[in-house]
Amino acid sequence: MVLTNSNKDLLDEMYETALHVAKEAGKVIREAFYKEKKVDTKMSAADLVTETDQAIEKMVETMIMKKYPSHKFIGEESSKDGERHTLTDDPTWIIDPIDGTTNFVNSIPEVCFSLGIKVNKETVIGVVYAPIKEELFTARLGQGSYMNGNKLQASKITDLKKAVILFEGGASRDAKILEDKMANTHSLYTNARGMRSYGSGALSICNVAAGRGQGFFEYGLHIWDFTAGGLIATEAGAVVMDPSGAELDPMHRRVLCACTQEVADSLSKLLVHIDMGWD
Amino acid sequence: MVLTNSNKDLLDEMYETALHVAKEAGKVIREAFYKEKKVDTKMSAADLVTETDQAIEKMVETMIMKKYPSHKFIGEESSKDGERHTLTDDPTWIIDPIDGTTNFVNSIPEVCFSLGIKVNKETVIGVVYAPIKEELFTARLGQGSYMNGNKLQASKITDLKKAVILFEGGASRDAKILEDKMANTHSLYTNARGMRSYGSGALSICNVAAGRGQGFFEYGLHIWDFTAGGLIATEAGAVVMDPSGAELDPMHRRVLCACTQEVADSLSKLLVHIDMGWD
Repeated sequence: MVLTNSNKDLLDEMYETALHVAKEAGKVIREAFYKEKKVDTKMSAADLVTETDQAIEKMVETMIMKKYPSHKFIGEESSKDGERHTLTDDPTWIIDPIDGTTNFVNSIPEVCFSLGIKVNKETVIGVVYAPIKEELFTARLGQGSYMNGNKLQASKITDLKKAVILFEGGASRDAKILEDKMANTHSLYTNARGMRSYGSGALSICNVAAGRGQGFFEYGLHIWDFTAGGLIATEAGAVVMDPSGAELDPMHRRVLCACTQEVADSLSKLLVHIDMGWD
Repeated sequence: MVLTNSNKDLLDEMYETALHVAKEAGKVIREAFYKEKKVDTKMSAADLVTETDQAIEKMVETMIMKKYPSHKFIGEESSKDGERHTLTDDPTWIIDPIDGTTNFVNSIPEVCFSLGIKVNKETVIGVVYAPIKEELFTARLGQGSYMNGNKLQASKITDLKKAVILFEGGASRDAKILEDKMANTHSLYTNARGMRSYGSGALSICNVAAGRGQGFFEYGLHIWDFTAGGLIATEAGAVVMDPSGAELDPMHRRVLCACTQEVADSLSKLLVHIDMGWD
């Protein structure tokens, strides 16, 4: 699909569909949030999945595929471990039914539904909805990003010493990976103003977009965790890149987001760059 | 002051005063939150204070001392570094004008006003108000604890492997202290389900009370950070103790809070117990 004025109407309609789908997903999350959850583990004891993750993904995939049968779909729960995805030029809906599943299981409000749409491999729409906190983050390419309708602007801080950095420990319990992650946390405690960890990569990127913290990095997340948030952040003036400083590879399971290029570069220089594979 | 039925009216009145004071402090925090802040540092580059902290403490101390001239007052900003406080049997108002000052400076919503009242060295009233999130936590000894009027109950989880633990890096940048804190973080990543860090000790204890996470520990916080939250947590069924397992010493600058005795004991066994001195 070529992005031209002639398909502006289609993009408008896809955006409306994305909003509708996010709100439906949010309803299901909200209803299940305070109930007992049936939990399974995936790659490690810290890598959880619930019936609600699976039910939302099934519901959303059905809604989207019915409306846009020629479009592609990448979802967390329908992706098999180790299976590689191929990103084509086709419109591709990339969703995480619940980002922050551990928070969801443990009744911690930082949970969200994340939906990003790529066309010609470029993210054109991003919607992240946190239904317990009632925060709806939205972005369209070239049109800015918003939280509950209010325009977002990332922080203008350039000095890492004045920056609060968000990070995620992630679900891997591999000893070497954890050691490298701890080294990163330690070096940032000594070089940044503070560190925060909320348990949702997608919401952390949105927080940077909203000026609530100056940077975020994670090694081991997936394309569905940062596609929507990535657009929301860049449309708010933030930088999104590979932690090494290279251009972001959407299939590479790592991301660095910062309010300014200066903070991004400072972070990139300090971090041990962990390779967690590709989606 | 002896706690009897005859001074029940006085305690009721003190509780109403505490709520009033918290709401007034919340107004000042809310008004200043999105503005540029004038920041000074205290013990380290990560230990911040703003004009707003100081203005709120002054305002609150004036309000309380005018109404209760015979009562004692302990506040973060009027406490000098290294100065030791003496806790008497007199009614003592213990306040932190802004817990989460770094969050406040960096426009991160997890900030609160914290007010605990001790009588005969026992906490009888606790009020923690997070004005950006609009969350008001309240407790009175023996009468349960509440968030925005809804009764709180801590999680019933007993197995650390199913627990999400909240922690704070704190403001100290002493290399040895930071190393011990990193060791604690590392061992909990391998033994608990997940780790979160919000940048406000008082709100983290309230989160455990609200069932949003199963434990919290911090080495290096102060009496004004955990007096109110401590009562809110115990009234919600949680355990509050010295991290070593000993009874809590309110002047000792460390605390462990957990949803159940089992999670508290598991945490206590795993942690390196750092001595950060006394208030």
